[in-house]
Amino acid sequence: MSKALSPEDLEVRLRAIGDERYHDKHPFHKILHGGEATKGQVQAWVLNRFCYQSAIPRKDAALISKMMDSDLRREWRSRIEDHDGRAEGEGGIERWLKLAEGVGLDRDYVKSTDGALAATKFAVEAYVHFVAEHSLLEAVASSLTELFAPAIHRARIAGLLEHYDFANETTMSYFKKRLDEAPKDVKFGLDYVLREATTAERQQAVIAALYFKTDVLWAQLDALYHAYVTPGHIPPGAFRPEDA
Amino acid sequence: MSKALSPEDLEVRLRAIGDERYHDKHPFHKILHGGEATKGQVQAWVLNRFCYQSAIPRKDAALISKMMDSDLRREWRSRIEDHDGRAEGEGGIERWLKLAEGVGLDRDYVKSTDGALAATKFAVEAYVHFVAEHSLLEAVASSLTELFAPAIHRARIAGLLEHYDFANETTMSYFKKRLDEAPKDVKFGLDYVLREATTAERQQAVIAALYFKTDVLWAQLDALYHAYVTPGHIPPGAFRPEDA
Repeated sequence: MSKALSPEDLEVRLRAIGDERYHDKHPFHKILHGGEATKGQVQAWVLNRFCYQSAIPRKDAALISKMMDSDLRREWRSRIEDHDGRAEGEGGIERWLKLAEGVGLDRDYVKSTDGALAATKFAVEAYVHFVAEHSLLEAVASSLTELFAPAIHRARIAGLLEHYDFANETTMSYFKKRLDEAPKDVKFGLDYVLREATTAERQQAVIAALYFKTDVLWAQLDALYHAYVTPGHIPPGAFRPEDA
Repeated sequence: MSKALSPEDLEVRLRAIGDERYHDKHPFHKILHGGEATKGQVQAWVLNRFCYQSAIPRKDAALISKMMDSDLRREWRSRIEDHDGRAEGEGGIERWLKLAEGVGLDRDYVKSTDGALAATKFAVEAYVHFVAEHSLLEAVASSLTELFAPAIHRARIAGLLEHYDFANETTMSYFKKRLDEAPKDVKFGLDYVLREATTAERQQAVIAALYFKTDVLWAQLDALYHAYVTPGHIPPGAFRPEDA
Protein backbone atom coordinates (compact mmCIF):
# COMPACT_ATOMS: atom_id res chain seq x y z
CA MET A 1 0.00 0.00 0.00
CA SER A 2 1.37 3.40 -0.96
CA LYS A 3 1.70 6.33 1.41
CA ALA A 4 -1.32 8.49 2.23
CA LEU A 5 -1.59 11.87 0.53
CA SER A 6 -1.77 15.09 2.54
CA PRO A 7 -5.28 16.62 2.62
CA GLU A 8 -4.06 19.30 0.21
CA ASP A 9 -2.75 16.71 -2.27
CA LEU A 10 -5.91 14.64 -1.95
CA GLU A 11 -7.96 17.71 -2.84
CA VAL A 12 -5.78 18.30 -5.91
CA ARG A 13 -6.24 14.65 -6.90
CA LEU A 14 -10.03 14.84 -6.52
CA ARG A 15 -10.26 18.09 -8.50
CA ALA A 16 -8.20 16.49 -11.28
CA ILE A 17 -10.94 13.86 -11.69
CA GLY A 18 -13.28 16.69 -12.61
CA ASP A 19 -10.88 17.97 -15.26
CA GLU A 20 -10.59 14.46 -16.64
CA ARG A 21 -14.11 13.02 -16.41
CA TYR A 22 -16.82 15.50 -15.42
CA HIS A 23 -19.71 15.59 -17.85
CA ASP A 24 -19.14 19.23 -18.82
CA LYS A 25 -16.81 17.62 -21.41
CA HIS A 26 -19.58 15.48 -22.90
CA PRO A 27 -20.57 16.28 -26.51
CA PHE A 28 -24.26 16.36 -25.58
CA HIS A 29 -23.64 19.37 -23.33
CA LYS A 30 -21.76 21.14 -26.10
CA ILE A 31 -24.82 20.73 -28.34
CA LEU A 32 -27.22 21.80 -25.58
CA HIS A 33 -25.31 24.82 -24.31
CA GLY A 34 -24.24 25.91 -27.78
CA GLY A 35 -27.83 26.31 -28.95
CA GLU A 36 -27.76 23.44 -31.44
CA ALA A 37 -30.24 21.17 -29.65
CA THR A 38 -33.65 20.62 -31.21
CA LYS A 39 -36.77 21.03 -29.12
CA GLY A 40 -37.08 17.22 -28.95
CA GLN A 41 -33.50 16.87 -27.73
CA VAL A 42 -34.05 19.46 -25.02
CA GLN A 43 -37.24 17.67 -23.97
CA ALA A 44 -35.46 14.31 -23.88
CA TRP A 45 -32.70 15.80 -21.74
CA VAL A 46 -35.18 17.39 -19.32
CA LEU A 47 -37.33 14.30 -18.88
CA ASN A 48 -34.38 11.95 -18.48
CA ARG A 49 -32.56 14.25 -16.12
CA PHE A 50 -35.72 14.34 -14.04
CA CYS A 51 -35.00 10.72 -13.06
CA TYR A 52 -31.69 11.85 -11.63
CA GLN A 53 -33.04 14.95 -9.88
CA SER A 54 -35.89 13.10 -8.30
CA ALA A 55 -33.64 10.27 -7.03
CA ILE A 56 -31.30 12.60 -5.14
CA PRO A 57 -33.41 12.81 -1.96
CA ARG A 58 -33.57 8.99 -1.85
CA LYS A 59 -29.81 8.87 -2.27
CA ASP A 60 -29.38 11.45 0.49
CA ALA A 61 -31.75 9.58 2.79
CA ALA A 62 -29.69 6.40 2.28
CA LEU A 63 -26.61 8.42 3.15
CA ILE A 64 -28.16 9.93 6.28
CA SER A 65 -29.15 6.43 7.39
CA LYS A 66 -25.41 5.73 7.84
CA MET A 67 -24.73 8.75 10.05
CA MET A 68 -24.52 8.07 13.78
CA ASP A 69 -24.33 11.74 14.73
CA SER A 70 -27.23 14.16 14.97
CA ASP A 71 -25.14 17.15 13.89
CA LEU A 72 -24.03 15.38 10.72
CA ARG A 73 -27.56 14.22 9.94
CA ARG A 74 -29.01 17.68 10.44
CA GLU A 75 -26.39 19.17 8.16
CA TRP A 76 -27.01 16.63 5.40
CA ARG A 77 -30.78 16.77 5.81
CA SER A 78 -30.79 20.28 4.34
CA ARG A 79 -30.08 18.64 0.97
CA ILE A 80 -33.33 16.71 1.12
CA GLU A 81 -35.12 19.91 2.04
CA ASP A 82 -33.47 21.72 -0.87
CA HIS A 83 -34.82 19.14 -3.31
CA ASP A 84 -38.19 18.26 -1.79
CA GLY A 85 -38.97 21.71 -0.38
CA ARG A 86 -40.58 22.59 2.94
CA ALA A 87 -44.08 22.65 1.48
CA GLU A 88 -45.88 21.46 -1.61
CA GLY A 89 -44.88 23.40 -4.70
CA GLU A 90 -41.39 24.19 -3.37
CA GLY A 91 -37.93 22.68 -3.81
CA GLY A 92 -35.56 21.69 -6.58
CA ILE A 93 -37.68 18.89 -8.01
CA GLU A 94 -40.59 21.28 -8.36
CA ARG A 95 -38.30 23.79 -10.07
CA TRP A 96 -37.18 21.05 -12.45
CA LEU A 97 -40.83 20.35 -13.28
CA LYS A 98 -41.26 24.06 -14.06
CA LEU A 99 -38.44 23.66 -16.56
CA ALA A 100 -40.16 20.57 -17.97
CA GLU A 101 -43.41 22.49 -18.47
CA GLY A 102 -41.44 25.36 -19.98
CA VAL A 103 -40.06 23.07 -22.69
CA GLY A 104 -43.55 21.80 -23.50
CA LEU A 105 -43.72 18.57 -21.53
CA ASP A 106 -46.62 17.37 -19.44
CA ARG A 107 -45.77 17.42 -15.74
CA ASP A 108 -47.42 14.08 -14.96
CA TYR A 109 -45.75 12.37 -17.92
CA VAL A 110 -42.35 13.57 -16.71
CA LYS A 111 -43.09 12.51 -13.12
CA SER A 112 -44.15 9.05 -14.28
CA THR A 113 -40.67 8.56 -15.88
CA ASP A 114 -42.51 6.34 -18.40
CA GLY A 115 -40.69 7.87 -21.34
CA ALA A 116 -37.24 7.97 -19.76
CA LEU A 117 -34.50 5.74 -21.14
CA ALA A 118 -33.91 2.47 -19.30
CA ALA A 119 -30.20 3.33 -19.34
CA THR A 120 -30.93 6.55 -17.43
CA LYS A 121 -32.81 4.65 -14.75
CA PHE A 122 -30.08 2.03 -14.48
CA ALA A 123 -27.42 4.73 -13.99
CA VAL A 124 -29.51 6.67 -11.47
CA GLU A 125 -30.42 3.61 -9.43
CA ALA A 126 -26.78 2.48 -9.53
CA TYR A 127 -26.01 5.74 -7.71
CA VAL A 128 -28.72 5.18 -5.08
CA HIS A 129 -27.50 1.60 -4.55
CA PHE A 130 -23.87 2.68 -4.40
CA VAL A 131 -24.62 5.06 -1.56
CA ALA A 132 -26.74 2.47 0.26
CA GLU A 133 -24.11 -0.26 -0.06
CA HIS A 134 -20.82 1.59 0.50
CA SER A 135 -19.29 3.28 3.53
CA LEU A 136 -20.38 6.72 4.66
CA LEU A 137 -17.02 8.09 3.54
CA GLU A 138 -17.46 6.67 0.02
CA ALA A 139 -21.07 7.87 -0.08
CA VAL A 140 -20.01 11.41 0.82
CA ALA A 141 -17.14 11.25 -1.68
CA SER A 142 -19.55 10.31 -4.45
CA SER A 143 -21.33 13.64 -3.90
CA LEU A 144 -18.17 15.60 -4.71
CA THR A 145 -19.03 16.08 -8.36
CA GLU A 146 -20.66 19.13 -6.77
CA LEU A 147 -17.16 20.59 -6.76
CA PHE A 148 -17.45 20.90 -10.52
CA ALA A 149 -21.15 21.83 -10.80
CA PRO A 150 -21.14 25.63 -10.37
CA ALA A 151 -19.14 26.12 -13.59
CA ILE A 152 -21.50 23.94 -15.63
CA HIS A 153 -24.57 25.62 -14.10
CA ARG A 154 -23.24 29.05 -15.02
CA ALA A 155 -22.40 27.89 -18.56
CA ARG A 156 -25.82 26.31 -18.87
CA ILE A 157 -27.75 29.38 -17.67
CA ALA A 158 -25.82 31.61 -20.06
CA GLY A 159 -26.09 29.18 -22.99
CA LEU A 160 -29.77 28.41 -22.57
CA LEU A 161 -30.75 32.08 -22.07
CA GLU A 162 -28.82 33.07 -25.17
CA HIS A 163 -30.12 30.35 -27.49
CA TYR A 164 -33.59 29.11 -26.52
CA ASP A 165 -36.99 30.77 -26.32
CA PHE A 166 -38.05 28.61 -23.38
CA ALA A 167 -35.27 29.96 -21.15
CA ASN A 168 -36.48 32.58 -18.65
CA GLU A 169 -36.50 33.35 -14.93
CA THR A 170 -38.95 30.54 -14.16
CA THR A 171 -37.42 27.76 -16.23
CA MET A 172 -33.88 28.66 -15.15
CA SER A 173 -34.79 28.84 -11.46
CA TYR A 174 -33.51 25.32 -10.72
CA PHE A 175 -29.98 26.18 -11.85
CA LYS A 176 -29.91 29.63 -10.27
CA LYS A 177 -31.01 28.22 -6.93
CA ARG A 178 -28.36 25.47 -7.09
CA LEU A 179 -25.70 28.17 -7.44
CA ASP A 180 -26.82 29.44 -4.01
CA GLU A 181 -27.17 26.03 -2.37
CA ALA A 182 -24.16 24.16 -3.73
CA PRO A 183 -21.23 26.07 -2.14
CA LYS A 184 -22.31 25.22 1.42
CA ASP A 185 -22.97 21.57 0.51
CA VAL A 186 -19.73 21.06 -1.31
CA LYS A 187 -17.64 22.68 1.42
CA PHE A 188 -19.16 20.34 3.99
CA GLY A 189 -18.66 17.25 1.83
CA LEU A 190 -15.10 18.13 0.87
CA ASP A 191 -14.09 18.98 4.45
CA TYR A 192 -15.56 15.69 5.63
CA VAL A 193 -13.69 13.65 3.02
CA LEU A 194 -10.36 15.43 3.57
CA ARG A 195 -10.72 14.97 7.34
CA GLU A 196 -11.76 11.30 7.28
CA ALA A 197 -9.74 9.88 4.36
CA THR A 198 -6.48 9.70 6.30
CA THR A 199 -5.04 6.40 5.03
CA ALA A 200 -3.96 5.45 1.52
CA GLU A 201 -6.65 2.77 1.46
CA ARG A 202 -9.43 5.19 2.38
CA GLN A 203 -8.11 7.70 -0.11
CA GLN A 204 -8.21 5.08 -2.86
CA ALA A 205 -11.82 4.31 -1.94
CA VAL A 206 -12.69 8.01 -2.08
CA ILE A 207 -11.06 8.42 -5.49
CA ALA A 208 -12.89 5.33 -6.81
CA ALA A 209 -16.20 6.70 -5.49
CA LEU A 210 -15.72 9.97 -7.34
CA TYR A 211 -14.79 8.12 -10.56
CA PHE A 212 -17.91 6.01 -10.14
CA LYS A 213 -20.03 9.14 -9.85
CA THR A 214 -18.54 10.72 -12.97
CA ASP A 215 -19.49 7.47 -14.78
CA VAL A 216 -23.08 7.81 -13.52
CA LEU A 217 -23.33 11.28 -15.06
CA TRP A 218 -21.44 10.48 -18.27
CA ALA A 219 -23.45 7.31 -18.98
CA GLN A 220 -26.70 9.31 -18.83
CA LEU A 221 -25.49 11.65 -21.55
CA ASP A 222 -24.12 8.79 -23.67
CA ALA A 223 -27.57 7.19 -23.59
CA LEU A 224 -29.21 10.50 -24.46
CA TYR A 225 -26.80 11.12 -27.33
CA HIS A 226 -27.27 7.63 -28.74
CA ALA A 227 -31.07 7.82 -28.57
CA TYR A 228 -31.68 11.44 -29.58
CA VAL A 229 -28.66 12.78 -31.48
CA THR A 230 -27.47 9.78 -33.53
CA PRO A 231 -30.44 9.19 -35.87
CA GLY A 232 -32.54 6.05 -35.63
CA HIS A 233 -31.70 4.67 -32.20
CA ILE A 234 -34.54 5.57 -29.83
CA PRO A 235 -35.03 2.33 -27.85
CA PRO A 236 -38.44 0.62 -27.70
CA GLY A 237 -40.77 2.30 -25.21
CA ALA A 238 -38.80 5.53 -24.80
CA PHE A 239 -40.04 9.09 -25.41
CA ARG A 240 -40.32 9.96 -29.10
CA PRO A 241 -40.14 13.72 -29.73
CA GLU A 242 -42.69 13.60 -32.57
CA ASP A 243 -45.30 12.36 -30.07
CA ALA A 244 -44.83 15.25 -27.61
CA MET B 1 -58.40 -3.98 -12.34
CA SER B 2 -59.05 -5.93 -15.50
CA LYS B 3 -59.81 -9.65 -15.63
CA ALA B 4 -57.04 -12.19 -15.35
CA LEU B 5 -55.83 -13.88 -18.54
CA SER B 6 -55.95 -17.64 -18.95
CA PRO B 7 -52.51 -19.31 -18.67
CA GLU B 8 -52.58 -19.83 -22.45
CA ASP B 9 -53.31 -16.17 -23.12
CA LEU B 10 -50.67 -15.08 -20.62
CA GLU B 11 -48.11 -17.19 -22.45
CA VAL B 12 -49.12 -15.57 -25.75
CA ARG B 13 -48.75 -12.14 -24.13
CA LEU B 14 -45.31 -12.97 -22.76
CA ARG B 15 -44.09 -14.36 -26.08
CA ALA B 16 -45.31 -11.20 -27.81
CA ILE B 17 -42.89 -9.18 -25.65
CA GLY B 18 -40.09 -11.14 -27.27
CA ASP B 19 -41.34 -10.26 -30.75
CA GLU B 20 -41.57 -6.65 -29.73
CA ARG B 21 -38.50 -6.03 -27.56
CA TYR B 22 -35.99 -8.89 -27.45
CA HIS B 23 -32.46 -7.81 -28.37
CA ASP B 24 -32.29 -10.04 -31.45
CA LYS B 25 -33.85 -6.96 -33.12
CA HIS B 26 -30.99 -4.69 -32.02
CA PRO B 27 -28.82 -3.26 -34.83
CA PHE B 28 -25.64 -4.30 -33.01
CA HIS B 29 -26.61 -7.95 -33.38
CA LYS B 30 -27.28 -7.47 -37.09
CA ILE B 31 -23.72 -6.15 -37.48
CA LEU B 32 -22.25 -8.92 -35.33
CA HIS B 33 -24.12 -11.85 -36.83
CA GLY B 34 -23.89 -10.51 -40.37
CA GLY B 35 -20.11 -10.54 -40.31
CA GLU B 36 -19.68 -6.75 -40.43
CA ALA B 37 -18.18 -6.32 -36.97
CA THR B 38 -14.53 -5.34 -36.68
CA LYS B 39 -12.22 -7.27 -34.37
CA GLY B 40 -12.40 -4.40 -31.88
CA GLN B 41 -16.20 -4.44 -31.92
CA VAL B 42 -16.26 -8.20 -31.32
CA GLN B 43 -13.81 -7.77 -28.45
CA ALA B 44 -15.88 -4.96 -26.95
CA TRP B 45 -18.99 -7.12 -27.16
CA VAL B 46 -17.26 -10.10 -25.54
CA LEU B 47 -15.73 -8.17 -22.66
CA ASN B 48 -18.89 -6.20 -21.92
CA ARG B 49 -21.12 -9.26 -22.17
CA PHE B 50 -18.79 -10.94 -19.67
CA CYS B 51 -20.18 -8.57 -17.02
CA TYR B 52 -23.63 -9.95 -17.71
CA GLN B 53 -22.59 -13.62 -17.86
CA SER B 54 -20.62 -13.40 -14.67
CA ALA B 55 -23.44 -11.69 -12.78
CA ILE B 56 -26.00 -14.39 -13.55
CA PRO B 57 -25.02 -16.70 -10.65
CA ARG B 58 -25.32 -13.76 -8.23
CA LYS B 59 -28.75 -13.01 -9.68
CA ASP B 60 -29.76 -16.66 -9.34
CA ALA B 61 -28.48 -16.81 -5.77
CA ALA B 62 -30.60 -13.76 -4.90
CA LEU B 63 -33.55 -15.55 -6.48
CA ILE B 64 -32.94 -18.79 -4.58
CA SER B 65 -32.75 -16.79 -1.36
CA LYS B 66 -36.48 -16.09 -1.80
CA MET B 67 -37.50 -19.73 -2.22
CA MET B 68 -38.99 -21.39 0.85
CA ASP B 69 -39.06 -24.85 -0.69
CA SER B 70 -36.15 -27.25 -1.03
CA ASP B 71 -37.40 -28.74 -4.31
CA LEU B 72 -37.64 -25.32 -5.92
CA ARG B 73 -34.20 -24.31 -4.64
CA ARG B 74 -32.61 -27.53 -5.91
CA GLU B 75 -34.16 -27.04 -9.32
CA TRP B 76 -32.99 -23.44 -9.62
CA ARG B 77 -29.55 -24.23 -8.18
CA SER B 78 -28.68 -26.11 -11.38
CA ARG B 79 -28.44 -22.72 -13.08
CA ILE B 80 -25.66 -21.62 -10.76
CA GLU B 81 -23.90 -24.92 -11.44
CA ASP B 82 -24.32 -24.42 -15.18
CA HIS B 83 -22.57 -21.07 -14.98
CA ASP B 84 -19.98 -21.66 -12.26
CA GLY B 85 -19.32 -25.33 -13.06
CA ARG B 86 -18.78 -28.18 -10.63
CA ALA B 87 -15.02 -27.75 -10.62
CA GLU B 88 -12.45 -25.14 -11.58
CA GLY B 89 -12.20 -24.72 -15.34
CA GLU B 90 -15.81 -25.76 -15.98
CA GLY B 91 -19.08 -23.90 -16.49
CA GLY B 92 -20.53 -21.21 -18.69
CA ILE B 93 -18.38 -18.36 -17.36
CA GLU B 94 -15.28 -20.39 -18.12
CA ARG B 95 -16.60 -21.07 -21.62
CA TRP B 96 -17.18 -17.34 -22.09
CA LEU B 97 -13.57 -16.70 -21.08
CA LYS B 98 -12.50 -19.20 -23.74
CA LEU B 99 -14.41 -17.08 -26.24
CA ALA B 100 -12.66 -13.99 -24.87
CA GLU B 101 -9.24 -15.57 -25.35
CA GLY B 102 -10.29 -16.72 -28.82
CA VAL B 103 -10.97 -13.12 -29.86
CA GLY B 104 -7.57 -12.02 -28.57
CA LEU B 105 -8.40 -10.67 -25.13
CA ASP B 106 -6.47 -11.29 -21.94
CA ARG B 107 -8.46 -13.46 -19.55
CA ASP B 108 -7.53 -11.47 -16.43
CA TYR B 109 -8.33 -8.16 -18.11
CA VAL B 110 -11.78 -9.45 -19.02
CA LYS B 111 -12.36 -10.85 -15.53
CA SER B 112 -11.37 -7.52 -13.95
CA THR B 113 -14.19 -5.80 -15.95
CA ASP B 114 -11.89 -2.73 -15.86
CA GLY B 115 -12.51 -1.99 -19.53
CA ALA B 116 -16.25 -2.63 -19.54
CA LEU B 117 -18.63 0.28 -20.09
CA ALA B 118 -20.12 1.83 -16.96
CA ALA B 119 -23.51 1.59 -18.70
CA THR B 120 -23.07 -2.19 -19.01
CA LYS B 121 -22.37 -2.51 -15.30
CA PHE B 122 -25.33 -0.29 -14.42
CA ALA B 123 -27.68 -2.43 -16.53
CA VAL B 124 -26.33 -5.70 -15.19
CA GLU B 125 -26.45 -4.60 -11.55
CA ALA B 126 -29.96 -3.26 -12.12
CA TYR B 127 -30.91 -6.83 -13.00
CA VAL B 128 -29.28 -8.27 -9.86
CA HIS B 129 -30.98 -5.62 -7.73
CA PHE B 130 -34.33 -6.15 -9.42
CA VAL B 131 -34.27 -9.83 -8.52
CA ALA B 132 -33.16 -9.09 -4.97
CA GLU B 133 -35.83 -6.46 -4.41
CA HIS B 134 -38.89 -7.90 -6.16
CA SER B 135 -41.12 -10.86 -5.45
CA LEU B 136 -40.08 -14.40 -6.34
CA LEU B 137 -42.71 -14.44 -9.08
CA GLU B 138 -41.33 -11.25 -10.66
CA ALA B 139 -37.78 -12.55 -10.28
CA VAL B 140 -38.67 -15.77 -12.11
CA ALA B 141 -40.58 -13.82 -14.76
CA SER B 142 -37.51 -11.68 -15.44
CA SER B 143 -35.66 -14.86 -16.47
CA LEU B 144 -38.15 -15.56 -19.25
CA THR B 145 -36.11 -13.84 -21.94
CA GLU B 146 -34.75 -17.40 -22.08
CA LEU B 147 -37.88 -18.16 -24.08
CA PHE B 148 -36.36 -16.18 -26.93
CA ALA B 149 -32.69 -17.17 -26.48
CA PRO B 150 -32.41 -20.42 -28.48
CA ALA B 151 -33.21 -18.65 -31.75
CA ILE B 152 -30.58 -15.97 -31.17
CA HIS B 153 -27.99 -18.56 -30.09
CA ARG B 154 -28.56 -20.57 -33.25
CA ALA B 155 -28.35 -17.43 -35.43
CA ARG B 156 -25.21 -16.39 -33.58
CA ILE B 157 -23.44 -19.72 -33.93
CA ALA B 158 -24.23 -19.84 -37.64
CA GLY B 159 -23.32 -16.19 -38.23
CA LEU B 160 -20.08 -16.24 -36.27
CA LEU B 161 -18.90 -19.55 -37.79
CA GLU B 162 -19.62 -18.25 -41.28
CA HIS B 163 -17.96 -14.86 -40.92
CA TYR B 164 -15.16 -14.85 -38.36
CA ASP B 165 -11.83 -16.66 -38.11
CA PHE B 166 -12.04 -16.84 -34.33
CA ALA B 167 -15.21 -18.96 -34.40
CA ASN B 168 -14.57 -22.64 -33.76
CA GLU B 169 -15.68 -25.51 -31.47
CA THR B 170 -13.91 -24.02 -28.45
CA THR B 171 -14.99 -20.40 -28.79
CA MET B 172 -18.57 -21.36 -29.68
CA SER B 173 -18.89 -23.83 -26.80
CA TYR B 174 -20.72 -21.35 -24.56
CA PHE B 175 -23.57 -20.94 -27.04
CA LYS B 176 -23.76 -24.63 -27.96
CA LYS B 177 -23.96 -25.63 -24.32
CA ARG B 178 -26.69 -23.07 -23.66
CA LEU B 179 -28.78 -24.70 -26.37
CA ASP B 180 -28.69 -27.89 -24.27
CA GLU B 181 -29.28 -26.21 -20.90
CA ALA B 182 -31.88 -23.59 -21.75
CA PRO B 183 -34.93 -25.72 -22.67
CA LYS B 184 -35.16 -27.31 -19.21
CA ASP B 185 -34.66 -23.95 -17.46
CA VAL B 186 -37.18 -22.09 -19.55
CA LYS B 187 -39.83 -24.77 -19.19
CA PHE B 188 -39.50 -24.65 -15.42
CA GLY B 189 -39.62 -20.84 -15.31
CA LEU B 190 -42.55 -20.56 -17.69
CA ASP B 191 -44.56 -23.26 -15.90
CA TYR B 192 -43.93 -21.54 -12.57
CA VAL B 193 -45.06 -18.15 -13.87
CA LEU B 194 -48.17 -19.50 -15.62
CA ARG B 195 -49.11 -21.44 -12.46
CA GLU B 196 -48.52 -18.61 -9.97
CA ALA B 197 -49.64 -15.51 -11.90
CA THR B 198 -53.34 -16.16 -11.42
CA THR B 199 -54.65 -12.64 -10.84
CA ALA B 200 -54.63 -9.66 -13.19
CA GLU B 201 -52.40 -7.80 -10.75
CA ARG B 202 -49.81 -10.58 -10.64
CA GLN B 203 -49.96 -10.94 -14.40
CA GLN B 204 -49.27 -7.22 -14.78
CA ALA B 205 -46.25 -7.58 -12.49
CA VAL B 206 -45.00 -10.53 -14.55
CA ILE B 207 -45.38 -8.60 -17.81
CA ALA B 208 -43.58 -5.59 -16.31
CA ALA B 209 -40.74 -7.83 -15.11
CA LEU B 210 -40.22 -9.24 -18.58
CA TYR B 211 -40.28 -5.76 -20.13
CA PHE B 212 -37.72 -4.68 -17.55
CA LYS B 213 -35.47 -7.57 -18.52
CA THR B 214 -35.67 -6.77 -22.24
CA ASP B 215 -34.58 -3.23 -21.30
CA VAL B 216 -31.57 -4.65 -19.43
CA LEU B 217 -30.47 -6.50 -22.56
CA TRP B 218 -31.28 -3.72 -25.03
CA ALA B 219 -29.52 -1.03 -23.00
CA GLN B 220 -26.29 -3.05 -23.04
CA LEU B 221 -26.31 -3.13 -26.85
CA ASP B 222 -27.22 0.56 -27.11
CA ALA B 223 -24.18 1.38 -24.97
CA LEU B 224 -22.00 -0.89 -27.08
CA TYR B 225 -23.28 0.61 -30.33
CA HIS B 226 -22.77 4.17 -29.12
CA ALA B 227 -19.24 3.48 -27.87
CA TYR B 228 -17.93 1.16 -30.59
CA VAL B 229 -20.01 1.59 -33.75
CA THR B 230 -20.81 5.32 -33.84
CA PRO B 231 -17.33 6.87 -34.24
CA GLY B 232 -15.78 8.97 -31.49
CA HIS B 233 -17.81 8.08 -28.43
CA ILE B 234 -15.81 5.63 -26.31
CA PRO B 235 -16.33 6.94 -22.78
CA PRO B 236 -13.39 7.82 -20.53
CA GLY B 237 -11.81 4.74 -18.96
CA ALA B 238 -13.43 2.16 -21.25
CA PHE B 239 -11.67 -0.41 -23.45
CA ARG B 240 -10.13 1.07 -26.58
CA PRO B 241 -9.66 -1.50 -29.35
CA GLU B 242 -6.37 0.02 -30.53
CA ASP B 243 -4.87 -0.78 -27.10
CA ALA B 244 -5.80 -4.47 -27.20
